[in-house]
Amino acid sequence: MSVPTDALDRTSTDRPLPVLGCDVTVPLVTGGEVTYAALDYAASAPALRRVWDDVAAYAPYYGSVHRGAGYLSQLSTDLFENSRRTVAGFLGCREDDQVVFTRSTTDSLNLLAAALPAGCEVFVFETEHHASLLPWRDARVSYLDAPRTSAEAVATLERALAGRDPKGPALVCVTGASNVTGELWPVRELAAAAHAHGARIVLDAAQLAPHHPVDIAELDVDWVAFSGHKLYAPFGSGVLAGRADWLRESEPYLAGGGASRKVARRADGGVDVEWHTTAARHEAGSPNVIGVYAIASACKALTDAGFDRLVERERELVARVRAGLAEVPEVRVLSLFGDDAPRVGVISFVVDGWNSSHFAAALSAEYGIGVRDGLFCAHPLVRTLLGGDTDDPGECGAPDAGPGERSLNAIRVSFGAGTPDEHVERFIGAVRELVRDGARWNYRTEDGRCVPDRG
Amino acid sequence: MSVPTDALDRTSTDRPLPVLGCDVTVPLVTGGEVTYAALDYAASAPALRRVWDDVAAYAPYYGSVHRGAGYLSQLSTDLFENSRRTVAGFLGCREDDQVVFTRSTTDSLNLLAAALPAGCEVFVFETEHHASLLPWRDARVSYLDAPRTSAEAVATLERALAGRDPKGPALVCVTGASNVTGELWPVRELAAAAHAHGARIVLDAAQLAPHHPVDIAELDVDWVAFSGHKLYAPFGSGVLAGRADWLRESEPYLAGGGASRKVARRADGGVDVEWHTTAARHEAGSPNVIGVYAIASACKALTDAGFDRLVERERELVARVRAGLAEVPEVRVLSLFGDDAPRVGVISFVVDGWNSSHFAAALSAEYGIGVRDGLFCAHPLVRTLLGGDTDDPGECGAPDAGPGERSLNAIRVSFGAGTPDEHVERFIGAVRELVRDGARWNYRTEDGRCVPDRG
Repeated sequence: MSVPTDALDRTSTDRPLPVLGCDVTVPLVTGGEVTYAALDYAASAPALRRVWDDVAAYAPYYGSVHRGAGYLSQLSTDLFENSRRTVAGFLGCREDDQVVFTRSTTDSLNLLAAALPAGCEVFVFETEHHASLLPWRDARVSYLDAPRTSAEAVATLERALAGRDPKGPALVCVTGASNVTGELWPVRELAAAAHAHGARIVLDAAQLAPHHPVDIAELDVDWVAFSGHKLYAPFGSGVLAGRADWLRESEPYLAGGGASRKVARRADGGVDVEWHTTAARHEAGSPNVIGVYAIASACKALTDAGFDRLVERERELVARVRAGLAEVPEVRVLSLFGDDAPRVGVISFVVDGWNSSHFAAALSAEYGIGVRDGLFCAHPLVRTLLGGDTDDPGECGAPDAGPGERSLNAIRVSFGAGTPDEHVERFIGAVRELVRDGARWNYRTEDGRCVPDRG
Repeated sequence: MSVPTDALDRTSTDRPLPVLGCDVTVPLVTGGEVTYAALDYAASAPALRRVWDDVAAYAPYYGSVHRGAGYLSQLSTDLFENSRRTVAGFLGCREDDQVVFTRSTTDSLNLLAAALPAGCEVFVFETEHHASLLPWRDARVSYLDAPRTSAEAVATLERALAGRDPKGPALVCVTGASNVTGELWPVRELAAAAHAHGARIVLDAAQLAPHHPVDIAELDVDWVAFSGHKLYAPFGSGVLAGRADWLRESEPYLAGGGASRKVARRADGGVDVEWHTTAARHEAGSPNVIGVYAIASACKALTDAGFDRLVERERELVARVRAGLAEVPEVRVLSLFGDDAPRVGVISFVVDGWNSSHFAAALSAEYGIGVRDGLFCAHPLVRTLLGGDTDDPGECGAPDAGPGERSLNAIRVSFGAGTPDEHVERFIGAVRELVRDGARWNYRTEDGRCVPDRG
């Protein structure tokens, strides 16, 4: 997945893609207003202007899909199924792969969990997002300890897979880019290790797909999952794409219309159901046509913009943020694989002497910068990175430490194709200023939210 | 649920609510273009103009909810949770009720199915939509024969519930308005019967909520499920609202972030999870904020328009369509409860000597009218109504009969608050003309879709 930077025409790499909300101003606690700097892309990215325009252009033509006889129903059905093909192309799907539309990455992985063959064992690093860590409720799960290098990740997986007994079906679930550190995982190498040991692998691309081309065939992974709302298409849809066999052979994810081909009463009073064997099997209910079309639109927009250029520009932004943070000795950036690891625009850190929630609140209230504080739905990873006590898990995201105490949560800044340089510069300046001068306001926690203390 | 028509100010009852798509023109196979008459509301309704405007106004302010420290995240969180309160108000929820956001009615009922207590028995009429008929996969299900009157429905349920043994937990699932006949079911009476026998009841309000006020407390049902896309808010969200206890005590519907409060490695290498006990328990993954806000906007729009007036206007449209169809002897309207049964704007029929798919295709191609043909994801009901052979279920919606043969599927016309009188008049005229003069074009089935035969 390396980028041929030397071959790039650099003319467009300095410009962010247009997104909604770039002109929104927010009030500052210190008076006045500033344009909002959305630096929480890892949670949800703003909609691309093009995605919004496509949705707005389609909305008057919206109609029910699949069985409507009307013109708009047929147009909507074509748009829906063409969107499936667009996503398949975006992901480099193999001919036999299925693209199933879900509501999110979480939903996609829960769907795959429900489709595991009997006796399937699951291998997952403790460093994963909860969406990858928790869905495997009916399976035997082996949680793998956090590796400290890419190579150690592969070796750890190799060892775990080699040790399994009996050798039934197995699945590895791994992120492409950490939602905490932004670091890229060695997906191709992990896939090779999985396949060498007769296991399959699903790539959690929630944080990778918005930042980096994902090619399912080239990576040789069995499935890819991602969310629209992180890919500049926040309309409630997600994707699970990959091997059709487990999906075809499992019970439908949801039972209902759309998934059922034939339903009939039996003579004994019961009901017989014949389910679809295509993607429709797992898409019961009326599909979210607008959400699906929005994802397809985002896929096209990223491709048309030249994804490699976006990668290159983001790499520069990452370097700038990391350099800026490195100049502040009180800041510690969280990293699993070290400074040289390739990463996307997701960076978490703590500030010595600061409660992370207060720091994040000050960035918002005094600079109009939206970041996130907490454990980022990756509790074991963040605790490992913070050196926290695993006996005291702390509530997701709650401020666990008072000012001056060791913070038990972290601050995350994240950005992407829509981020202007100014947001990144403002963020670096704000961190420097806050650490040097302190916050100009007091903050307190109210209803679980850290807010300026006007009392 | 009777409407005090005498108390109504009639000034606004003659006007449809503004919806998207009302100006869309479509080509006719006979030449020229007409504005599209969307008469497939029972599948998906067009977006209310107000819903669209609200979504468009919010879109630039979109941000991640719940843990973001930024201004837009906090604004979005407030908007999301306020939407929950709006929906609770719209449904007349009791103080302890929970409103869980899902993707659709199908999803809501699958969620409830996953939350049934151990040993729960489910009672469901064979006349239900597949979304109500099929989700109860882990339960013992009693399918009840189609009643031919409201009173018979209540008596049938009473008898079934009285006969159960042992008397463990039980759930009745019933539609508020049939997605095939539009007929209202005696929900309050069925709820009373359920409760008298120690059972609970969930109301499938997918077809009721867009057409009629639903008051969960007044109907005394335990849960209500409905979909945004039928309620003029087609952005991928749905609702399950009602009793919190079963939901709180069951496994989370999806496993992942948002639903998990604390996650920690155990000393033995496993993982401990503490789940939320609020609605968040079943809403893992980033919520579909736009979809949820769209539903809340639609709830407000219907309330502000005066829902009783909308009911009254729709009743007049229903009467007009039924009177128009009654004048065509070849048309047989499908009905379970007879001519006098109260109903919403959903009417299914067959035309003697016509393949229903060809008839629907002709309405589209020659009149620009979008209806639906098929079995409407309610196979047993439609077959019962058609007098079809239950040994030959037929594929969902496929044209089963050639021209002149007895049709094994039906045509459904459906409308609502956005429907102008002209659409209904055009439909009645088109039916009359098609039956009298025949179609002006030939139709054939191609890729499962009935299209004009240009060959």
